[in-house]
Amino acid sequence: MSEVYAMRVIARARNAYTDNFSVPRQPGLIPEVVTRIEFEEAYRVPEALRGLEGFSHLWLLWCFDRKEQAGWHPTVRPPRLGGNTRVGVFASRAPVRPNPIGLSVVRLLSVEPGPALLVRGADLADGTPIFDIKPYLPYADCVPEATGGFTEGLDEKRLEVDCDPDLLAPLGAEAEALLAVLSHDPRPGYQRDENRVYGFRFAGCEVRFRVAGSRLTVLEIRRPGAPSPV
Amino acid sequence: MSEVYAMRVIARARNAYTDNFSVPRQPGLIPEVVTRIEFEEAYRVPEALRGLEGFSHLWLLWCFDRKEQAGWHPTVRPPRLGGNTRVGVFASRAPVRPNPIGLSVVRLLSVEPGPALLVRGADLADGTPIFDIKPYLPYADCVPEATGGFTEGLDEKRLEVDCDPDLLAPLGAEAEALLAVLSHDPRPGYQRDENRVYGFRFAGCEVRFRVAGSRLTVLEIRRPGAPSPV
Repeated sequence: MSEVYAMRVIARARNAYTDNFSVPRQPGLIPEVVTRIEFEEAYRVPEALRGLEGFSHLWLLWCFDRKEQAGWHPTVRPPRLGGNTRVGVFASRAPVRPNPIGLSVVRLLSVEPGPALLVRGADLADGTPIFDIKPYLPYADCVPEATGGFTEGLDEKRLEVDCDPDLLAPLGAEAEALLAVLSHDPRPGYQRDENRVYGFRFAGCEVRFRVAGSRLTVLEIRRPGAPSPV
Repeated sequence: MSEVYAMRVIARARNAYTDNFSVPRQPGLIPEVVTRIEFEEAYRVPEALRGLEGFSHLWLLWCFDRKEQAGWHPTVRPPRLGGNTRVGVFASRAPVRPNPIGLSVVRLLSVEPGPALLVRGADLADGTPIFDIKPYLPYADCVPEATGGFTEGLDEKRLEVDCDPDLLAPLGAEAEALLAVLSHDPRPGYQRDENRVYGFRFAGCEVRFRVAGSRLTVLEIRRPGAPSPV
């Protein structure tokens, strides 16, 4: 039995990624989505953020709390490899791993009263627990000579998004963010069924769409409780 | 009371940093020191490392287990600022923080049978518990435009190291690594006493030295149990 340490939740992410399916597969992909980081009561100490505003980027160390963690598997199938190729869990950033810690760099927009932080480019769903916030130190963290293993040369294919502007009304200011999310193909890596209607929740709305080739067509955007069009 | 998650130790660092005082203040500073990462029994699964050898760099998420963690303080005094200026704990990489998680990028040298990993540039003491190993993904983790807050423009001053070659004998192959460690000034940031004899343990040896201005003089290197020179 290996040794165990207790990690406390210090803050939570608040954003438009109402469910996990809309969350981008890596940080930085969708700068349109702003995440507010709200501290838990014991950590609501403005002094603990002194000097943070001078950094352009931060690390978030957070908890993969929405994935089944019981029983990690030594290999995983990264979506970037099409979902069919297995690599070791420690050679991936997969969420189901021995300890459910996620690591993401985000752009710091502002330190707000509260205190809270506004950041861009997070790949955390709404409500995600955060364990730590650290400054991104270019002299230590930026490694331009690093080479990327099996991820090299994989350029994510973007989808063309076809959406009737009227459908976007329930989203208000989050409309552009949704279009960005959709262009990054939120389907699971191993699902490519042109007849299937996919759905997820974004900014509190139900979004339904279909994908044929490289074209995604939005079918419906509905705020739950609002009447469905006949 | 905030929510708590349990994190298991998956591996431990094995290297020449016998005590914390010799550990560099950031990763990458001392490539001469090779760290072996040995997995705990439940995680000794070669498959979990499949594909890792293709990455040049890794993230280690590890535990600050040698610092008093009871009672984190909202502000800390980073050694890089001379040890007198206070910044928020979340604006620093200080070890005493709400959750004792360290984050370091290291160069992967090889995946060894066992399995184990050999890496360069770690800033973890011998025996440090490791929670997670992730590949360094240049497209996500390397942010060339990031700006470094209060750390910008701070160039670490290197010391000139004065050491009788005969003194280095007990260190064997680790002699060069010790000289590199010493040149990075292992004194605590706020201690600058020219008359004081400082000491730490490196590669199992007791090392004693004095610093005057920018010149460090090694006084003694002794393997414990070996007779002290009269």
